[in-house]
Amino acid sequence: MSLAIKDNEVDIVIGALRSDLTTFMNEWRPMFSRFHVIIVKDPDLKEELKIPEGFNLDVYGKPDIDQVVGSSTSILFSGYSCRYFGYLISRKKYIISVDDDCLPARDPKGFLVDAVAQHISNLTNPATPFFFNTLYDPYAEGVDFVRGYPFSLRGGVKCALSCGLWLNLADHDAPTQALKARQRNSRYVDAVMTVPAGSLIPISGINIAFEREAVGPALVPALKLAGEGKCRWETMEDIWSGLCVKVICDHLGLGVKTGLPYIWRTDRGDPIASLKKEWEGVKLMEEVIPFFQSVRLPREATTVEECIIEVANAVKERLGSMDPVFARAAKAMLDWVKLWQSVGSSSSPSSAV
Amino acid sequence: MSLAIKDNEVDIVIGALRSDLTTFMNEWRPMFSRFHVIIVKDPDLKEELKIPEGFNLDVYGKPDIDQVVGSSTSILFSGYSCRYFGYLISRKKYIISVDDDCLPARDPKGFLVDAVAQHISNLTNPATPFFFNTLYDPYAEGVDFVRGYPFSLRGGVKCALSCGLWLNLADHDAPTQALKARQRNSRYVDAVMTVPAGSLIPISGINIAFEREAVGPALVPALKLAGEGKCRWETMEDIWSGLCVKVICDHLGLGVKTGLPYIWRTDRGDPIASLKKEWEGVKLMEEVIPFFQSVRLPREATTVEECIIEVANAVKERLGSMDPVFARAAKAMLDWVKLWQSVGSSSSPSSAV
Repeated sequence: MSLAIKDNEVDIVIGALRSDLTTFMNEWRPMFSRFHVIIVKDPDLKEELKIPEGFNLDVYGKPDIDQVVGSSTSILFSGYSCRYFGYLISRKKYIISVDDDCLPARDPKGFLVDAVAQHISNLTNPATPFFFNTLYDPYAEGVDFVRGYPFSLRGGVKCALSCGLWLNLADHDAPTQALKARQRNSRYVDAVMTVPAGSLIPISGINIAFEREAVGPALVPALKLAGEGKCRWETMEDIWSGLCVKVICDHLGLGVKTGLPYIWRTDRGDPIASLKKEWEGVKLMEEVIPFFQSVRLPREATTVEECIIEVANAVKERLGSMDPVFARAAKAMLDWVKLWQSVGSSSSPSSAV
Repeated sequence: MSLAIKDNEVDIVIGALRSDLTTFMNEWRPMFSRFHVIIVKDPDLKEELKIPEGFNLDVYGKPDIDQVVGSSTSILFSGYSCRYFGYLISRKKYIISVDDDCLPARDPKGFLVDAVAQHISNLTNPATPFFFNTLYDPYAEGVDFVRGYPFSLRGGVKCALSCGLWLNLADHDAPTQALKARQRNSRYVDAVMTVPAGSLIPISGINIAFEREAVGPALVPALKLAGEGKCRWETMEDIWSGLCVKVICDHLGLGVKTGLPYIWRTDRGDPIASLKKEWEGVKLMEEVIPFFQSVRLPREATTVEECIIEVANAVKERLGSMDPVFARAAKAMLDWVKLWQSVGSSSSPSSAV
């Protein structure tokens, strides 16, 4: 069922939080080499990047970010957020992004998983957010809609976002990671599913793909924790952006999928050190979820940009006084829309290696 | 995490649509023999039942149904609906029910799946309908809540209904079954998940379990197709009842799970013969789904019985004029509540073999 897409419709975007990408790029070579790769270097990283030969890629660093973003200080591209610069300057229809501590996974039969191909399949086949199919993705080989599934909904809707999963190191928050430092995820669930409309989901940026032309601006680096570090469990930027995307997709009638493909997450960071941190993100979620569960976008908001502005204004109004982090997030969202529009309307930026 | 439950808190309910249950009962013996079994004979079935020795069971047939149900003609217990008589006369907390053309499945490693144990685990562990966990059942061994999952929702809610899945013959509707007569389901998806609140699902009665004390009366034999036969793809009774249950569970804050356990469905019926039938059920669904997607229960409806009465009245009002089948369904639902209350308040009925 998958529609054919051209290799030049895809950008692979990698945020480089460490300098030596040799193993990472070599392991991903079979899946990445057909596509253009954008590597954005964490502005906090001082060392020069080590990247093996043989890829069609562009590398962007702090000078490029400064040049494009200019004097704006509300949007921060440090740490995991550096990849958003790649989303901003891409001119492709689809973007696929994985963390630089992830390697290709193997399925239960021992075959390497082509995460890129699976993400493209997820994005190019329809999503079914308005009714649940108990046998999971009805468009997968050998699967169909089950008895009782209304025929009028079997055409589905466009899938805008595909969220892949993680073997080995699961994506826990700081307290869980600290308490269960040795727990590893070994369960390979052979399924893709559409997250139902109206249901929120903790979208992780570790292993995602999206149709940039459909929802690009909704992936926004807005929520920055004061104590944010270089471990995933110390970040919230992708969770916040994921809540924005899901609410906007629900409003615009677009689909979000989760499940396959898996990637293999290698260990990084010291969970015991995290025990000493304030679990700021965990506490913020208790305010954030009721907000996103109840936010309603007006019918007049018909573009992603208009939707983000609506969400940002609601954040400012309803969460702004609770914690300065929310007022900053609202401002970053508004600035991001302007930036997206100005960069998007300009010609393709030159690359600097 | 699973709470211990006693063997005498469970009834296995089997609707007998064919007379020779020898293979069926012998194959299920390792899973069924600890529990009390209720077999309800399809009133249309003339032959005597053949049931092997060694079970703690009661068999009910047409005379028992006539005695309990009396003169009511709105509730029909023929065909697949005969099992509902077992739901009605059970006095146990939990009920597990599988179709009599299903056998225990094997997992990908070749081990027999204990569907009863998995259903009990699904029912006794909490459900999480208010936020989606990307790594599926957070209470499963080696699984947890992922980063971004709000802590205040991690306790979950009571799980009222567990819907298992099917290997070999998938649960298709008549047109799909006719068009893809040779398609078999071989994909074993190793996951249990809560269906999010607000999302509808085509619940199949082939392989289910529920907490009778929590939602029993919501499993109601109400929608009977004029051309209903003895093949699952010619029925809609479970789909209708499942929509009622889901809407009521959402209203009462109870959970519905789907996924494991799988059972093995053997072939029954002639899909080519189904090609000649009117696909009445498929057409009805196009009216039924918008109704259930929009029906809202009043805050004052706090018991399952009150909720069914509300749904029945809304069916009568909004669907009654479209097709006589809906007016009959509404009447059956109202009669069912009365029947449930009268039988439930009486002492345990005697059994007749």
